[in-house]
Amino acid sequence: MTTHDRTKRHPLWTTPAVEALRTTTHTKVSEIDTKATPGFAGNKADGEYMLEERGAVLSALQEMLYANGRSGDKRSVLLILQGMDTAGKGGMVRHVIGQVDPQGVDHTAFGVPTPEEKRHHYLWRINKALPRGGQLGVFDRSHYEDVLVVRVHNLVPPEVWSGRYQEINQFERELVYNGTTLVKVAMFVSLDEQKRRLAERLERRDKHWKYNPDDVTERSLWPQYQEAYQAMLDKTSTDHAPWYVVPCDRKWYSRIAVTELLIDALSRLELDWPPAEYDIEVEKQRLARS
Amino acid sequence: MTTHDRTKRHPLWTTPAVEALRTTTHTKVSEIDTKATPGFAGNKADGEYMLEERGAVLSALQEMLYANGRSGDKRSVLLILQGMDTAGKGGMVRHVIGQVDPQGVDHTAFGVPTPEEKRHHYLWRINKALPRGGQLGVFDRSHYEDVLVVRVHNLVPPEVWSGRYQEINQFERELVYNGTTLVKVAMFVSLDEQKRRLAERLERRDKHWKYNPDDVTERSLWPQYQEAYQAMLDKTSTDHAPWYVVPCDRKWYSRIAVTELLIDALSRLELDWPPAEYDIEVEKQRLARS
Repeated sequence: MTTHDRTKRHPLWTTPAVEALRTTTHTKVSEIDTKATPGFAGNKADGEYMLEERGAVLSALQEMLYANGRSGDKRSVLLILQGMDTAGKGGMVRHVIGQVDPQGVDHTAFGVPTPEEKRHHYLWRINKALPRGGQLGVFDRSHYEDVLVVRVHNLVPPEVWSGRYQEINQFERELVYNGTTLVKVAMFVSLDEQKRRLAERLERRDKHWKYNPDDVTERSLWPQYQEAYQAMLDKTSTDHAPWYVVPCDRKWYSRIAVTELLIDALSRLELDWPPAEYDIEVEKQRLARS
Repeated sequence: MTTHDRTKRHPLWTTPAVEALRTTTHTKVSEIDTKATPGFAGNKADGEYMLEERGAVLSALQEMLYANGRSGDKRSVLLILQGMDTAGKGGMVRHVIGQVDPQGVDHTAFGVPTPEEKRHHYLWRINKALPRGGQLGVFDRSHYEDVLVVRVHNLVPPEVWSGRYQEINQFERELVYNGTTLVKVAMFVSLDEQKRRLAERLERRDKHWKYNPDDVTERSLWPQYQEAYQAMLDKTSTDHAPWYVVPCDRKWYSRIAVTELLIDALSRLELDWPPAEYDIEVEKQRLARS
């Protein structure tokens, strides 16, 4: 399979996901159609088929990234997932990242900061979790919590959080400069769809553990969150690390969309199998004699 | 699916893997039939079908472990993979662990100790990588390197490595006491099969990166390694943390065998979905009003 084959667009993608989803200066969080399937002309069945087909492509590219990392390549890819509760961050990890080799995945879920984390700069725990060369890093929530929940709940004064956008841009610029491709995904569900998903967690015994009473409290702060997400997109979508806005009412769509975003990021690295760092013929002889 | 269904033995398993593979005082490393499929009466096609079928069972159990971990359960499962080069440790991770949710997997590959690791006790890096409650930890190599390669290459004097067996037993007893179920898997290939696999790495461009000239050097030390593996099995297979000896010339067999060992370990935890830590009816009303 050549790079060309991998990146060739499927006819059901009328616009490539990277183009259809990339945030622009016109993106309005309050106007996002969370049921939409931007760029994709297929239905759920098409999407499920495509997840499998393109998952194999993603897996092949990821193996090559891993191989290069083992051979000293410092480059890595970092998927950042941000979204309101029930947007489907966990399912994204399970169904998209679950398609690639666990050896090459470095997954971190960021929760409420621990007492130790609170005693440090907010980027301290982020730095500790960055993927090394060859790894596909996955952040389930990230440093963006520090301009989202922190902003909405006034956990630090406005003069503190307002300085963070610029700091984050600089931090990410450094990451990109050091070889990490960032794939920043903002996941959006509607208030109604969130209610439906929370209700399901209350109905099903196997989902009770996913429900947190605070999630309902947060619903009353929806407008404030929309404002915080808007500011995040406006201020931290940069050329070196753009945001992609993914509608998530249809889980099947959000999963194939992120699969495409990752395939695009990996394809841009123009990877090949790393060359042998030894003399192949000499080694064949040594092996034959051993 | 009840616990009973999950643990019900498939007719092709004439003896459960935990029984067929558990090392005994009679196990002789030099006499292991690495082509054998202990306990399993099927062929490769049966094995491939079974990997998928039982992988789904493993995945369901792992999700329940993860759910309990999120609800405060401190228990975890740790798979330890030891084996000579080409035994298939990486493929085991990819094909067995790759079947479960990456969110619940904590994978660590231990290589040659870094300068920092060398300045610490050999269990320092192990302690840092232990799975937290609810996680399925995976060690690709482990503290057993410190009584295998270290012993064979005299990296420390005999009086040092000889004391480690007892120390490891005590260390693992503590882990088990604290809620970690250890699944220790010793993977064996024959010298001939290793040669074939190394030759393939030299033949295939997409496998050159997996080949290391040192692997051939190590082949000349095969008897010393067999002796070190024998001592490891004899001295560190305990009631709280037994070793399982898995023949690995047939990859499909080794993968279904380890899948069964993990299913057994998880089943013994007798997990159920964690109960709601809130009043379900109250929350339904709160949600409806939100």
